[in-house]
Amino acid sequence: MSIPPANFTSDNTAPVAAPILKEIQAANSGSAPSYGADFYTEQLNSTAREVFECDVWFYPVATGTAANALALAQVSPPYGAVYCHEFAHIAKDECGAPEFYTGGAQLIHLPSKDGKIDPKSVRDAVAYAQEMGVHHVLPACVSLSQATEWGTVYAPSEIASLSEAARSAGLAMHMDGARFANATAHLGCTPAELTSKVGVDVLSFGASKNGALCAEAVVIFNPAHAQRFERRRKQGGHLWSKHRFLSAQWVAYLRDGLWLDNARHANELASRLAQGFRGMPNMEILFPVQANEVFVAMPESTVSGLEALGFKFYRWPACRPGQGIAIRLVTSYVSTVEEVDGLLRASRGLLEEPRRV
Amino acid sequence: MSIPPANFTSDNTAPVAAPILKEIQAANSGSAPSYGADFYTEQLNSTAREVFECDVWFYPVATGTAANALALAQVSPPYGAVYCHEFAHIAKDECGAPEFYTGGAQLIHLPSKDGKIDPKSVRDAVAYAQEMGVHHVLPACVSLSQATEWGTVYAPSEIASLSEAARSAGLAMHMDGARFANATAHLGCTPAELTSKVGVDVLSFGASKNGALCAEAVVIFNPAHAQRFERRRKQGGHLWSKHRFLSAQWVAYLRDGLWLDNARHANELASRLAQGFRGMPNMEILFPVQANEVFVAMPESTVSGLEALGFKFYRWPACRPGQGIAIRLVTSYVSTVEEVDGLLRASRGLLEEPRRV
Amino acid sequence: MSIPPANFTSDNTAPVAAPILKEIQAANSGSAPSYGADFYTEQLNSTAREVFECDVWFYPVATGTAANALALAQVSPPYGAVYCHEFAHIAKDECGAPEFYTGGAQLIHLPSKDGKIDPKSVRDAVAYAQEMGVHHVLPACVSLSQATEWGTVYAPSEIASLSEAARSAGLAMHMDGARFANATAHLGCTPAELTSKVGVDVLSFGASKNGALCAEAVVIFNPAHAQRFERRRKQGGHLWSKHRFLSAQWVAYLRDGLWLDNARHANELASRLAQGFRGMPNMEILFPVQANEVFVAMPESTVSGLEALGFKFYRWPACRPGQGIAIRLVTSYVSTVEEVDGLLRASRGLLEEPRRV
Amino acid sequence: MSIPPANFTSDNTAPVAAPILKEIQAANSGSAPSYGADFYTEQLNSTAREVFECDVWFYPVATGTAANALALAQVSPPYGAVYCHEFAHIAKDECGAPEFYTGGAQLIHLPSKDGKIDPKSVRDAVAYAQEMGVHHVLPACVSLSQATEWGTVYAPSEIASLSEAARSAGLAMHMDGARFANATAHLGCTPAELTSKVGVDVLSFGASKNGALCAEAVVIFNPAHAQRFERRRKQGGHLWSKHRFLSAQWVAYLRDGLWLDNARHANELASRLAQGFRGMPNMEILFPVQANEVFVAMPESTVSGLEALGFKFYRWPACRPGQGIAIRLVTSYVSTVEEVDGLLRASRGLLEEPRRV
Repeated sequence: MSIPPANFTSDNTAPVAAPILKEIQAANSGSAPSYGADFYTEQLNSTAREVFECDVWFYPVATGTAANALALAQVSPPYGAVYCHEFAHIAKDECGAPEFYTGGAQLIHLPSKDGKIDPKSVRDAVAYAQEMGVHHVLPACVSLSQATEWGTVYAPSEIASLSEAARSAGLAMHMDGARFANATAHLGCTPAELTSKVGVDVLSFGASKNGALCAEAVVIFNPAHAQRFERRRKQGGHLWSKHRFLSAQWVAYLRDGLWLDNARHANELASRLAQGFRGMPNMEILFPVQANEVFVAMPESTVSGLEALGFKFYRWPACRPGQGIAIRLVTSYVSTVEEVDGLLRASRGLLEEPRRV
Repeated sequence: MSIPPANFTSDNTAPVAAPILKEIQAANSGSAPSYGADFYTEQLNSTAREVFECDVWFYPVATGTAANALALAQVSPPYGAVYCHEFAHIAKDECGAPEFYTGGAQLIHLPSKDGKIDPKSVRDAVAYAQEMGVHHVLPACVSLSQATEWGTVYAPSEIASLSEAARSAGLAMHMDGARFANATAHLGCTPAELTSKVGVDVLSFGASKNGALCAEAVVIFNPAHAQRFERRRKQGGHLWSKHRFLSAQWVAYLRDGLWLDNARHANELASRLAQGFRGMPNMEILFPVQANEVFVAMPESTVSGLEALGFKFYRWPACRPGQGIAIRLVTSYVSTVEEVDGLLRASRGLLEEPRRV
Repeated sequence: MSIPPANFTSDNTAPVAAPILKEIQAANSGSAPSYGADFYTEQLNSTAREVFECDVWFYPVATGTAANALALAQVSPPYGAVYCHEFAHIAKDECGAPEFYTGGAQLIHLPSKDGKIDPKSVRDAVAYAQEMGVHHVLPACVSLSQATEWGTVYAPSEIASLSEAARSAGLAMHMDGARFANATAHLGCTPAELTSKVGVDVLSFGASKNGALCAEAVVIFNPAHAQRFERRRKQGGHLWSKHRFLSAQWVAYLRDGLWLDNARHANELASRLAQGFRGMPNMEILFPVQANEVFVAMPESTVSGLEALGFKFYRWPACRPGQGIAIRLVTSYVSTVEEVDGLLRASRGLLEEPRRV
Repeated sequence: MSIPPANFTSDNTAPVAAPILKEIQAANSGSAPSYGADFYTEQLNSTAREVFECDVWFYPVATGTAANALALAQVSPPYGAVYCHEFAHIAKDECGAPEFYTGGAQLIHLPSKDGKIDPKSVRDAVAYAQEMGVHHVLPACVSLSQATEWGTVYAPSEIASLSEAARSAGLAMHMDGARFANATAHLGCTPAELTSKVGVDVLSFGASKNGALCAEAVVIFNPAHAQRFERRRKQGGHLWSKHRFLSAQWVAYLRDGLWLDNARHANELASRLAQGFRGMPNMEILFPVQANEVFVAMPESTVSGLEALGFKFYRWPACRPGQGIAIRLVTSYVSTVEEVDGLLRASRGLLEEPRRV
């Protein structure tokens, strides 16, 4: 039996995972102290220390843009430079939130391959800044995305090399982990091996794309950067009065490996998509598929054919400008084998179909 | 049978009202477009027009501080003056969020009675600013709280007079309606009679203190001030990806008068508290009790006695500086007659008790 | 022979002192490195160390508002509280520059006598903030004006007491020294005795009101607060390309005591004014005259009589709100005995004149 | 007779032109109203209308960074996009001042040739922004530099085409005219033909690089963008108390064509430099020489030879990244034929010299 054409636009269209919604309900029994003085927040703090195997300052907020912008404001002054990939979410998709929260910092785009920035480009950019002196914003921070905007994943050694380049020039390391679960699941390593053990100072840890209702967090490993974060969060309007309902989501997300199970599922279906496309003519997988995103170059007729059939996804010209059509396909923790296979089948059919003239 | 000593610290310690949590669950069926392109948000927009009897721009956010600060940034430039009561929430309890979001505006405190600002003080302050010229921030906005920080409520005519003073000097009118439901329930008038019909340009409409999980909204009546609010919200990190879960709360809150029923309940219990205290010696109700807050001056021995018994509330010296002990008692939609009577009984007992020496 | 009625509106209407203009001309011989790498700036740095008897970071800028706002941004985060007198220039006359440069800090007005804030009010305000926690801006800085807006001067011991209150709560000390020369001349002590030796971290040092063309400076005594000031100044647009012409003004101002001579002259004429008014009926000198400003309460008929005769000065209701007419008279380094005596003579004449009916 | 090796680092190392310094002295006779209520400022306003042949709002400030950042803040909201050349001064050399003054706007770098941006790249970038919607900063402004950072000049028709692209998408047009005089002198057209007549809304007009002590100006042609500029300037700390000394510089600069004479002289010497280099082997003039800057690619041995001889200039790798050595030579109104010929002669000598091994 056939299923309707599926939605691959984004992992943020998925519903809330059952254990998370259940925890919200559980947190609703009776009154509780507001602004984070509640039981769930206390429990979360101890869970976070276990997950990351060290002291951390763990601050839940409701959106990824808030997490990123608040995190960057902790590590960059208004006259600071934040080095990132040219298609980083902070650079392209947050409507200037980092510039606003830092009070004027500049995002400096680094050349890159497969969505990853590399230590040499950091060193070169910092050297240029130092030569320019007071006229240039002050090198303050390197921000990498894990997983990247192109669905690739940094190995721990790659992060360590970037950290080394950052640290030796006095810069902080920020990681945008909107899809940190997908990266961790892909690598099969521990969260600490991707963060505190390889020099990450501040992590924006996302849960909303992987089953939460509205849970992201600023996770600070370096006490020097944790100073007074509460005031910054409050001033940004990101401290909830009924804070237990943010913390409860995190508690459920991190309990019994739900976060990694969800991510593993999404990753596997992205791999299945990639595997399927690799066998088709005139199809090109543009980047290694290491998380839950697949970028595929395909004939315009196939793209518009899929659209006409009712499949949902975005055309993504930015991933290879000026070189024809590419689309982005995102799987999530609720995607199914049937949905994936339905898309592959439809693509195959369109490729085989005689071109209308 | 006796109940445990109740919590009167704040209406934000209450749980989520059942119909609102149920709506969140209902909104969780399957995928939905993100960032506000969902069904619930569409429904909310049409509900909002009905509730306010006019075209409105209704933007949900998760916190009251965000709603206030974003609203003020719509109506004041960085070099603007916002006129408000000296104990307004925006002035005292939001950690500089209005200053941050406006990019530098100044909150100017007006003299007041019972927590309300008046048209004459607005006119005088604007006249002073005009005399000072470029050295003074530019008069931009009057912000009133409805209900006020002292639990009092502006009559529609009082709002109209303030609006007239504001409008005639070219200022916008903002209303902080964190407890707008309590004010509306108290007056028994329509929401429009408190806002669009009496010159309010922008309302911060609160639901979190009255049964929602995390729902506030910026409600804009004047199209001139609605311009590009979406970008400002996004830049502040206040646009949710799974936006349906914000809108669903609002839909349930405004449906079948839940918001007014909840507020009416809280108001009635505050009145019952006030009524009870009025009969006791050495007790003074400091402001007219028109919403769900009661400020009571009482002997130190009574205050500490209540604390020792386990009752929860805040001492509130700011409401009459330098004149002895006063406490704030807040009721909510889940407060009960038994809780109120328990507090009154305990107070009476403490007053009658021979003073220990 | 009679002279025309003089101008007592402000010391900033005076021309540039001859030695300062001459130094600007001298600095104009040939090319020079830009942005502060010039000979005059080097010389200034060593002069500044001599004047203040310690290591200082001395950054010239062109306006007092820039000096104050940049200085405060060095010592307060966006979510900080700056404690000052309610009529401090930073609070009333800088169009929100401190809020803008800090990115959102709040100026908190302290009760005061004679324009001076006192340690007890600092301690009380900080205690209140600590009780409010994250909802309140973070106590960051005490800012005092020397001389004050009411023309009074803090004794070194008064500054030390304020510093002690600030320091013990972890706050920085800022001094707005737009009229620092007048204060120093009045007290007859050394600049160090008013700053570094009594706990001042950052001084806004003014020269424009006392003979310079456009010279103010941020003088930093505490290396912890000097960090990266150059970038902040540059980002604010306050780093001159032809920087030698700012430094040259300072070099001439500080050479051979010109700054103190000029201030002494202005102070003496203010004293002469005060002395003259004290002998007249219905005249009241409102504050001790310790610098170059005199605030006088006088009959409306006298004020308007002086205005009609062509004397220039400001009516200054703010210095005692609701209590009748007061005027502010400011003397400068170019004021003359004849101008002062002319005003006194005219006032006397007006008082004696039979009131018109 | 030989002269010492000359300084070609920048036109901002030159002294103040005699007529300008003389006007400052003339402005120093007696007292004058402060903050721009003086005679010189009045005169300047009428001169500005004559120079630009239309109503203009002309606001002097002391630095080019201030002029640019204040101008951009008038035309872009905090969530705005400013489109500019990737090596625009606003993007590279102002330490984030535009981001700071706008409160968060993003500078978006456009591909370019010879330092000029073109209408197609503006249209493409705006189309991309529109597709991205609320996640992308809002297209607000196009900023071009006249003359450009590479010493080239936009023809009036090129500006008109850019304006048309901007205007049709609702964007404002800003011109960074730090070297506006050089561009105007090169083209031989009127100032209006380069600004108001071709759709420029706001001009940052520079004088400091061309003979002034510290005079720049924000010149606003579009009344919609002039609103409340005074407050913004004041809040930025850029309103001088002794404002006459800023205005006097402008009055002298614009009188009798001094500004164009100075620029013409500098341009001619740059042309002479270019002409000289064109005849030499292994020398490449990288961009058309249309103002007072010459970028020359030359052998490393020649560059270091010139440095060793004492000539002053900057190496400028950014003008053709990764392609060997290039230097920037800037002439000014005080450069001489002898200085230029001295450099050419030395270069020729170094080229002919047998390479040391």
